Amino acid sequence: MMDTPLIMTQIIERAEKYFPKKEVVSRTDGGIHTFTYAKIAERTRRLASNLEKFGIKTGDRIGTLAWNHHRHLEAYFAIPCHGAVLHTINMRLSPQHVSYIVNSAEDRLLLIDSDVIPMLETIKDELTTVEGYIIMTDNDELPETTLSPVYHYEKLLAEGNPKQPFIQDLNENAPAGMCYTSATTGNPKGVVYSHRGILLHAIALGLADSTAISERDVALPVVPMFHVNAWGMPFASVWFGTKMVLPGPNFTPKILAELIETEKVTIAAGVPTIWLGLLKELEEGSHDTSSIRAVLCGGSAAPKSMIKTFEQKYSIPFLHAYGMTETSPLVFVSKPKSYQEDLPEDELYELKAKQGLVSPMIEIKVVGQDGEVKADGNEMGELLIRGPWIADEYFKDERSEGTFKDGWLYTGDVVTIDEEGFVKIVDRTKDLIKSGGEWISSVDIENTLMAHEGIFEAAVIAVPHEKWQERPIACVVLKDAYKEQVSQEDIIEFLKPQFAKWWLPDEVVFLDDIPKTGVGKFLKRALRDQLQDKYIKK
Amino acid sequence: MMDTPLIMTQIIERAEKYFPKKEVVSRTDGGIHTFTYAKIAERTRRLASNLEKFGIKTGDRIGTLAWNHHRHLEAYFAIPCHGAVLHTINMRLSPQHVSYIVNSAEDRLLLIDSDVIPMLETIKDELTTVEGYIIMTDNDELPETTLSPVYHYEKLLAEGNPKQPFIQDLNENAPAGMCYTSATTGNPKGVVYSHRGILLHAIALGLADSTAISERDVALPVVPMFHVNAWGMPFASVWFGTKMVLPGPNFTPKILAELIETEKVTIAAGVPTIWLGLLKELEEGSHDTSSIRAVLCGGSAAPKSMIKTFEQKYSIPFLHAYGMTETSPLVFVSKPKSYQEDLPEDELYELKAKQGLVSPMIEIKVVGQDGEVKADGNEMGELLIRGPWIADEYFKDERSEGTFKDGWLYTGDVVTIDEEGFVKIVDRTKDLIKSGGEWISSVDIENTLMAHEGIFEAAVIAVPHEKWQERPIACVVLKDAYKEQVSQEDIIEFLKPQFAKWWLPDEVVFLDDIPKTGVGKFLKRALRDQLQDKYIKK
Repeated sequence: MMDTPLIMTQIIERAEKYFPKKEVVSRTDGGIHTFTYAKIAERTRRLASNLEKFGIKTGDRIGTLAWNHHRHLEAYFAIPCHGAVLHTINMRLSPQHVSYIVNSAEDRLLLIDSDVIPMLETIKDELTTVEGYIIMTDNDELPETTLSPVYHYEKLLAEGNPKQPFIQDLNENAPAGMCYTSATTGNPKGVVYSHRGILLHAIALGLADSTAISERDVALPVVPMFHVNAWGMPFASVWFGTKMVLPGPNFTPKILAELIETEKVTIAAGVPTIWLGLLKELEEGSHDTSSIRAVLCGGSAAPKSMIKTFEQKYSIPFLHAYGMTETSPLVFVSKPKSYQEDLPEDELYELKAKQGLVSPMIEIKVVGQDGEVKADGNEMGELLIRGPWIADEYFKDERSEGTFKDGWLYTGDVVTIDEEGFVKIVDRTKDLIKSGGEWISSVDIENTLMAHEGIFEAAVIAVPHEKWQERPIACVVLKDAYKEQVSQEDIIEFLKPQFAKWWLPDEVVFLDDIPKTGVGKFLKRALRDQLQDKYIKK
Repeated sequence: MMDTPLIMTQIIERAEKYFPKKEVVSRTDGGIHTFTYAKIAERTRRLASNLEKFGIKTGDRIGTLAWNHHRHLEAYFAIPCHGAVLHTINMRLSPQHVSYIVNSAEDRLLLIDSDVIPMLETIKDELTTVEGYIIMTDNDELPETTLSPVYHYEKLLAEGNPKQPFIQDLNENAPAGMCYTSATTGNPKGVVYSHRGILLHAIALGLADSTAISERDVALPVVPMFHVNAWGMPFASVWFGTKMVLPGPNFTPKILAELIETEKVTIAAGVPTIWLGLLKELEEGSHDTSSIRAVLCGGSAAPKSMIKTFEQKYSIPFLHAYGMTETSPLVFVSKPKSYQEDLPEDELYELKAKQGLVSPMIEIKVVGQDGEVKADGNEMGELLIRGPWIADEYFKDERSEGTFKDGWLYTGDVVTIDEEGFVKIVDRTKDLIKSGGEWISSVDIENTLMAHEGIFEAAVIAVPHEKWQERPIACVVLKDAYKEQVSQEDIIEFLKPQFAKWWLPDEVVFLDDIPKTGVGKFLKRALRDQLQDKYIKK
C-alpha cells in the first residue's frame, strides 16, 4: 500500500474542492457572517501565507484565545497546514495560568479576540516568547492596547496570498495541535495532538455508529474551540463538507435556540450545563428544534432525567458521550445496540445515561484491585485507555509519569462495564466518597437528585468525618419556582427509596449556583474548600 | 499521541468482546449455519493455533479457494491475526492461472472448498510451495483425492486452542492480505494489502456519507470473498458488530432473494450482473425486500435504467460505487449531496449513474493530454488515485512500472469529473473506440442500450476499420420475450435520438449471452476476439 500520510491538508483541501458551496455561519460580536468553504479555504491560505511572512517554521507553536467563529476556524487549518502547531488556550483561565501555558508552549504568535486584551495586558511582560498579537475583530481599526506589536487579522488577510500552497511533506505523527487541561493541583498540563490522531479521530466521528457527522448535517459546536478542539467537530465537519454554525462569544440559551431554529441545526455538541440552560429556554420560549437529530453531550455525565426530558418532552435525540483532553476526546458514545432498543423505557434510559461503548480503534481496560474487573455492571475499577488518538505524555511535564504507564492512559475515572460493554462512570477516583471502608458514588446520588422536579443542579461531595472517614453532603440549586419550597427533609425522603441508608447525604446545602470550571464542569474542589470546615462531623 | 498500530486483531477482538451475541448466517452446500461472533472468534482462535502447529510464521502466505461462508470468514481473521498473509484466490480462474498465482505468492497452505479439488488435482504437481490442503467441508469425512497431504478443517479446529492469543506486535504496514487481478495479457498481477490499509478502508465503509455500515445492519456480501476481500465488507461488518449473511456456493437469484427476505438484509454488495439477475427474480417471484436500505453495486458501471428500476419499481435504494483490486477497492460512492436531492428526476439518476465522489483519505487527479482536465463533466482524462489503501506496486512484477508512477496509481480508466466533484467512467483506455480521430464511449452506448425494454444485456466493442481506424459494434442479448422480435434496425432507431450519427454502431450482433470474467464483468477481449475477423469493415 502507498505510504501516504494522514495530514490535515487533506481535510481543508477536500472541502475546498468538493464542497466549495457549503457554508459556515459564524456569529461574532459584529453580527452573523456567512462564508462558503471556498471562501474559508481561500482565507485559510491567506492566513498561512502570513505565517510564512512571520517566519513561522514547522513545529512552531501558535496560540489562539478565541471564541467559536470563522476566524478561529481558519486558524484551525492555516496553522497546522503550514506545519505549525495550533495551540488553543482556554480563555476562561486565570491570567496566571494563561501566562504559564503560553510560556510552557513557547507560543510565537497569539491570535486573539478583542475581549481578552485587558487580561493579556496584565501579563504581557511575562510572555517572553510571543512576537506579536493578531487581533481577530470585525472593526476596521484595532482597539487601543498596550500589547505590542499588534496586527489586524483582516488586514493581514487582505495582503495575504489567496493561493498559498499548504505544506504537504509532513509526517503524520508530527504535532498539529495542543491543548492544556486543568490539573487538580498546580499548573495546567499540555496535551499534543498529531495530524494522524486528529484525522483518525475525525473519521471516527463520521461513523454511522458514532456521531455520524455527514455532509447532510448542520453542525453546531457549542463546546468551545479552546476545549479539546471543540471535540474534533470542526475537523470532521470541514472534511465531510458539513455546514457549520459557530455561536461566537457571549451566547445565551436563547441565542442557541434561535441559531438551531434559523439554521436548521441537526447536531449540536456541548456540556450538560449548556443543555440544562437550553431546556430552561425551551420551557419558557417557543422554538422549533425539529431539525435536530442529535444533541451530543460530554465533558461530564448527563443525568438520566435530562436525557429523558430532551427525548420525551422535546423529541430531541440525546447522544451521551465521554472523553478527556488527553483522548482527543471521543472514547465512548452511548448509542443502544439494535437489539437493545426494545428495552423497557427505564432500562433504556439507564443505558443512555451510561457513557457508552468504546469507539473502533480505541481499546480500554477496567482495572480493580485484583486486575480486570468482571463485565457485570457492578464491579468498579479504574478506566485505562489506549489508541491512536490518546496522548502518551503531558508536554514536557514530570506529572506524565503518574498518568501514562505501560502504554495505557490511567484516567482516574472509576467505572463499571456491563455485559454489553457499556461503560458507566461511577466517579473520579478523587470524588468517590469512602465511608466506613465502602465506596459511595457521588455521581449516582447527583443523577437521582437531578430527577427531582424542583432541582435545577446538584453536586455531591465528600467531607471529612472522624468516625466514617468521609461522608456525603449534597449541594443543591433549586429551580426559581421551588425556592424556599423544598426542605432538606423533602430531599432526603426523595432519595430514600433509591439508596442504602448509609449512602444518604448527612446534609443538604442550598446554593444559588454551583461553581464551575471554565468548560462548565462542576468545580467540586471549590465546593469542598467552601464547605468542608463548616460541615466536619464529629 | 500513542504509537498504537492499526492491526486486524483489533477487529475480531472488538466483535468478540462487544458483540458476542451478534450472528453470522452462513450458507454452505450442507445447509444454513448460524454462529455468534463469540463462536466465530473462538473458531478463529482455534484455526490460528493450527497455523502455529503448521509452523506458519509472520509474513508467510496462505491461500484460500473458497466461497462466501463462515469458514472463509474465520480464515479472513485467523491468518492475518497470526501474522501471516491471507491470499484469496479466484476460484473461477483457469488452472494455469491458479498454478501461477499459488507459485508466485509461494503459498504454504491452501484452505479450500471441496468443489475445487478436481481442478487442483490437475495442477498439484506444479504447486511446489504448498505443504498441505485444508478442506473446508460440512461432511465428517474428507472426499477421495490425490491431493496430499489433506486435512479436515473441522477436525483441526476441534483439536485447536480456543483461547489462542493473536499476535499483537505487528507493524501496521505489514502485509495482511493479497489478491491477484486479471491482466489484459499475461498472468494475473498480485496486490498486497497492509493491516493499515485494510483498517482505514473498513473505517471508510462505516462513514455516514459512504456505505455507512453499522451495528444496525444485516450485511450480505454477494461479491465473492476471493474478489478484493469482498470489497472489505467482512472487515467492516465484524468490526462494527454487523450481522452478516454469507450466501455460499452456487447461489441463484432466488436464493439471494430468499436470504434477503428471511434474514432481513439491509445492505447487499455485488456486481451489476448480480443485480440484473435479482431484478429478473423480483419480476417473476414475490419477495419482501423492504428491509434493504442499500444495494451496493460496483465492479463495473451500473446502467442508469437498472438503478431507476431498483429505486422506483422496488423502492430499493441503489448505491453505485467504484473501485479496483488495486484500491482495496472503495474509491468513489455515488451519493447525491444534500442540495442535489431536489434535482429533476432525470438529472438525479444521471448523477447516481456516475461513479461518485471520492472517499475521505483518498486523493484523485484526472489527467488529459494537457494536464489536469477541467471539472466540467465533459473533458476526459485518465483517473489517477493515491491514498493509504491504494497499492504502490504489483507483487514482484515488472509490470508495476506501467501502472504506478510518481506516487500515483494510473487506473487506465477514462473519466470526466463534474463541477460537484462527481467522477464518471467514460471507458477503459483500452475500450474507448477511436473513430476518425475522435473518441466514442462504448459505456455510454451500452447504458443507453440497457434502457431498451427488450434488451437484457449489451456490450459495445471496437472492431478495426480501414478508413476510420475503429468502429463500434453492439453485442446484444434480448430478454426471452423479445427474442426474434427486435431487429438491428429497431435498435439503431432507438439509439439515434441520443447520439451523433458517427457514434451509432455499424452492426448489432444478437448473442445468447455475453462472455464474462470470473467476477461477472463483461469480457470484451473475448468478444473482440470472437467478432473482429467477421466484422472488419473496408
